Amino acid sequence: MNTKQWKAKIYDIITKDDGDNRASRVFDLIIMALILGSIAAIVLESFDSLSEKYGTVFRVFEIVTVAVFTVEYLLRIWTADLLYPQEKHPRLKYIFSFMALMDLLAILPFYLPFISADLRYLRMVRLFRMFRLFRVFKLGRYVDALQTVVAVIRQSASRLIISMALCFFVMLFSAIIMYTVENPVQPEQFPNVVASLWWAICTLTTVGYGDVYPITAVGRFFAAIISLVGIGIIAIPTGIIAAGFSSAISSKGAEGDDAHRSYCPYCGHKIR
Amino acid sequence: MNTKQWKAKIYDIITKDDGDNRASRVFDLIIMALILGSIAAIVLESFDSLSEKYGTVFRVFEIVTVAVFTVEYLLRIWTADLLYPQEKHPRLKYIFSFMALMDLLAILPFYLPFISADLRYLRMVRLFRMFRLFRVFKLGRYVDALQTVVAVIRQSASRLIISMALCFFVMLFSAIIMYTVENPVQPEQFPNVVASLWWAICTLTTVGYGDVYPITAVGRFFAAIISLVGIGIIAIPTGIIAAGFSSAISSKGAEGDDAHRSYCPYCGHKIR
Amino acid sequence: MNTKQWKAKIYDIITKDDGDNRASRVFDLIIMALILGSIAAIVLESFDSLSEKYGTVFRVFEIVTVAVFTVEYLLRIWTADLLYPQEKHPRLKYIFSFMALMDLLAILPFYLPFISADLRYLRMVRLFRMFRLFRVFKLGRYVDALQTVVAVIRQSASRLIISMALCFFVMLFSAIIMYTVENPVQPEQFPNVVASLWWAICTLTTVGYGDVYPITAVGRFFAAIISLVGIGIIAIPTGIIAAGFSSAISSKGAEGDDAHRSYCPYCGHKIR
Amino acid sequence: MNTKQWKAKIYDIITKDDGDNRASRVFDLIIMALILGSIAAIVLESFDSLSEKYGTVFRVFEIVTVAVFTVEYLLRIWTADLLYPQEKHPRLKYIFSFMALMDLLAILPFYLPFISADLRYLRMVRLFRMFRLFRVFKLGRYVDALQTVVAVIRQSASRLIISMALCFFVMLFSAIIMYTVENPVQPEQFPNVVASLWWAICTLTTVGYGDVYPITAVGRFFAAIISLVGIGIIAIPTGIIAAGFSSAISSKGAEGDDAHRSYCPYCGHKIR
Repeated sequence: MNTKQWKAKIYDIITKDDGDNRASRVFDLIIMALILGSIAAIVLESFDSLSEKYGTVFRVFEIVTVAVFTVEYLLRIWTADLLYPQEKHPRLKYIFSFMALMDLLAILPFYLPFISADLRYLRMVRLFRMFRLFRVFKLGRYVDALQTVVAVIRQSASRLIISMALCFFVMLFSAIIMYTVENPVQPEQFPNVVASLWWAICTLTTVGYGDVYPITAVGRFFAAIISLVGIGIIAIPTGIIAAGFSSAISSKGAEGDDAHRSYCPYCGHKIR
Repeated sequence: MNTKQWKAKIYDIITKDDGDNRASRVFDLIIMALILGSIAAIVLESFDSLSEKYGTVFRVFEIVTVAVFTVEYLLRIWTADLLYPQEKHPRLKYIFSFMALMDLLAILPFYLPFISADLRYLRMVRLFRMFRLFRVFKLGRYVDALQTVVAVIRQSASRLIISMALCFFVMLFSAIIMYTVENPVQPEQFPNVVASLWWAICTLTTVGYGDVYPITAVGRFFAAIISLVGIGIIAIPTGIIAAGFSSAISSKGAEGDDAHRSYCPYCGHKIR
Repeated sequence: MNTKQWKAKIYDIITKDDGDNRASRVFDLIIMALILGSIAAIVLESFDSLSEKYGTVFRVFEIVTVAVFTVEYLLRIWTADLLYPQEKHPRLKYIFSFMALMDLLAILPFYLPFISADLRYLRMVRLFRMFRLFRVFKLGRYVDALQTVVAVIRQSASRLIISMALCFFVMLFSAIIMYTVENPVQPEQFPNVVASLWWAICTLTTVGYGDVYPITAVGRFFAAIISLVGIGIIAIPTGIIAAGFSSAISSKGAEGDDAHRSYCPYCGHKIR
Repeated sequence: MNTKQWKAKIYDIITKDDGDNRASRVFDLIIMALILGSIAAIVLESFDSLSEKYGTVFRVFEIVTVAVFTVEYLLRIWTADLLYPQEKHPRLKYIFSFMALMDLLAILPFYLPFISADLRYLRMVRLFRMFRLFRVFKLGRYVDALQTVVAVIRQSASRLIISMALCFFVMLFSAIIMYTVENPVQPEQFPNVVASLWWAICTLTTVGYGDVYPITAVGRFFAAIISLVGIGIIAIPTGIIAAGFSSAISSKGAEGDDAHRSYCPYCGHKIR
């Protein structure tokens, strides 16, 4: 078997999704196990007792994970010309694709001593490995549902952003009112507008921790109005998404559910 | 009356739902009373004063209930060949059906001394009797509405599971960020990622007990963003279910159900 | 003018809604002022300082209100034969109509010394005068919107009740689990299943006061799952109502908005 | 260039939205920067340390802002006859338009010594400059989404107001019940109906700060029912808005907007 055949085979294993290809499925399972293990490691390492006792185990697992992900990353770059056959610079295109950047971000800090020394950044950075799960989850029967959910959110994106902007507007407004009203009475709870904004967000999202709340009559009056507006604020994104799903479901019902799917022209994956 | 006729009659009473059959309705009412009584007993027994005073009453009621449910369970197995007339092993099929397993689970522990000794497990186990209510609730005018609700949830199941997965993903992400940010400042509130996850769930579901919340500026900034994302997270399942009901109602509307009824806003009477 | 003409005129004033009739509008405004005044009185009387200072004012206002409402009630009974011209016993029919019973309930206790002595009951009872507002609000441009809202809620009633039943089921389930798990650790917060039910309701409705919450790991695990289920629980009634409005709006769009309205055959009101 | 040409040019810059006009865009950016700077100043000034240190900077920025906004206001009045060419009194019409009144409100208090002396009022008043953002946001790709959101809220306005009225009705009802039940036990938490109303709003909007909550069995029973009703109360505006978006999207879908786009779930690219 020459290099070209090897490359095609590796490409088949790490990128394509035939269903029949056993090696491809084993590879996916290994990657998935490493990702989930990585996440589990972040969670478990945060327990002081565990991190003291099994420190070495965590470190070895991390090294193995980074090694595998690095090899995978390099192989993906190597086989990028098969992924984008009509591109002039397929490798450059792949390196700057969203998923490849996430991949790099998840392994690079390990090789940078000044970052890897700080556990705090390392932990954050390892989180980016989660994005890899999206690639692995191409398998399974939930792809169709995931596609619908993603499509609805994307279609509603501009409306959602506008409603979030509206929401932020209302929040700032509420924060300034409450700061003006409550600051003279409880200066420790509402020391400035930013602290007041914290209250506004807790209230408008209806989380309501109860660490900060108005105690003056005027403050409570405005808080009551703001809470009621909060219902409307929540209603808008919910309404947008509900309408999106409604239209997605009804348009699917009309099309007959699987007539229009084939391959994504960008990444080559079978859509269903 | 020979055995076969007896069997057919018992089958009619415990399984079939004729509407005309009086014995069947009486049987359903008795079972329902025992289930509701069972649940009431769990609630009432939890009061120390009542459990001391009426301990014997609770015990006798429990024995009667288990006896009746055991007889019912055995009769259902006996008449299983009438329920699945074309099956080769109707009794085995019945025993391993979901409802029969729930039935067994709700009475079996009573006969196992090592479990029945521990009140804690017994209480949990008696809860499974609630499932029996589903069988009894076949009667009544809400069947149609229940069917619609169940059908919509079922149809939306894969989308709901995906959105729950998305939700869990965001929760884990939030938990790790908050742990990193808040742990150094309040190590007792955010001792590890699991504790931080508790905060993330309380916030993203907008429950907000107020037992754990960020106090640093960076922590509050992230908490604010996470709360806003929480609105979206709640919006997705709501939107999915709303769309499901929309499509269910509109497909019904085509059949002429209750889309064209109108009500007088003053007296509430149906108009046409 | 003879009795018949008087009766017809009074009927026109208190019941009909011509728009042109000036006396009718004045009458409506007086009744509305008395209702709103009544409610304001309940609110203001609850302030100890005001109830001491203006006790007599409140009492006089109450006597005037009850007097006017009593006269109105008697006039409505007197003119009931014009409201239900084809009924055999129009007065009896009116007396037992929902609105008339509410009217009676709102004035009767004032005449019963053993009730009117207890301020607590009296306050509750005066609340029923609010229902009268529905009759007054027949005017105004919000009638159409109110009609849509009421119609949607009514059409969705059976589905909403089922989802509430489902909700209660989940709540009881959650309460029993949390009682079992948390009672041994914090017996004061979870003394019995009823107290645990209070927690379950606070959590599943996402109110989350923070007076009761789990502290054990197992308890938090279940609480997390229950909170997530809570999102779904809220999503179901929201979805039902959203779908109801969707169908109401789209069916209106098709019908052309005002083709099918006339008079309610039960109370005689013009619908629009 | 004579006055008329000057006027036309200024009108083009401050009011029209050509896209090509560079001066117009620069003007918009300056105004936008001043608005955002104004809001940032309100937020930053609220920090005691910053307001002491950079007091002069804030004051100079405020003077510049007010000067620019005053000039803009006067220019808009001057060019009002180009905005309303067929009006008899275009300037009067403009002065009493909503946006012009907001503009006046945002600068006028600065010139009134008795108001500008009180920082509290000044801060509130400067908030009104936010409204100006609506005028600037005419640019950008989110205009379409904003128009949809505004249109849906407008169309649903009467229904939303009715549902808010219903909401207020339920709140008052709940407040009076809770006051009656809880006042004798915790007179400090529920001193009067207004304080009880604060609790009702916190509960029905599911904010649940946890500063006030029932402790009696009867109070908790009613609170539980009220919380459940709260779900329905939130569901109504959500449903209304969802239905509004559904109808807005489906009417757009007929025009061929973005109903038929599909996205690849792996890489996120639009497919067709």
